[in-house]
Amino acid sequence: MNWLNDVKWDAQGLVPVIAQEASSGDVLMFAWMNREALEQTAALGRAVYFSRSRNRLWFKGEESGHVQTVHEIRLDCDNDVVLLKVTQLGHTPGIACHTGRHSCFFSVLKTDAAGAVAWEATDPVLKDPESIYK
Amino acid sequence: MNWLNDVKWDAQGLVPVIAQEASSGDVLMFAWMNREALEQTAALGRAVYFSRSRNRLWFKGEESGHVQTVHEIRLDCDNDVVLLKVTQLGHTPGIACHTGRHSCFFSVLKTDAAGAVAWEATDPVLKDPESIYK
Repeated sequence: MNWLNDVKWDAQGLVPVIAQEASSGDVLMFAWMNREALEQTAALGRAVYFSRSRNRLWFKGEESGHVQTVHEIRLDCDNDVVLLKVTQLGHTPGIACHTGRHSCFFSVLKTDAAGAVAWEATDPVLKDPESIYK
Repeated sequence: MNWLNDVKWDAQGLVPVIAQEASSGDVLMFAWMNREALEQTAALGRAVYFSRSRNRLWFKGEESGHVQTVHEIRLDCDNDVVLLKVTQLGHTPGIACHTGRHSCFFSVLKTDAAGAVAWEATDPVLKDPESIYK
């Protein structure tokens, strides 16, 4: 698989991956892949990541049912970051985040009237995580 | 700056950053920030990264003129990835990539008629890099 050799894997054998919703352009999440995860993603047409916390392949949606269909796989100019164009399945609108939100990037840096700067969760929880992960 | 303490910096004191064009939703590039870079980004309203190769702050556009105005700064659910919504200045359409392309993610995984799989550069060079970096 020459195309897998073109990827510059880091010292841990991983590459960072951005998942973007094909229909909306929304950045849904950021994760990591090892060589096998990227190979499986291309072969299956669904997102397969490498879970650093569990130290194993993570077939996105394996517990939640929130599978990502992969339409396109892109590589950046340094060959060390992957971008997926996906459809987020299992719920409408799509839920990519383990908190039950559409996207993992739901916290926005805001400045209040008094000038205090803080991260504010702006996007709604679409489904209770308790009911996602039974 | 409490909001900077909320970010989970990695062992090198860095956080991965995704820059997304606000108008189009296009993912333009991926880079890294240290604490000072993120503080400067918020203070100046322009993207300031940390260059791992040069080991110093990188004021995006400092050589190319391709500055990124920052409209919004988001943090993910694990507090360890930043998403910027930007306007890419200095050229129309915007050039974020050092190759003179709109986005760094110009290579797409393709399968040809014979079944061979390879990365293919699909997006055009908008400006000769030789004329960007004088």
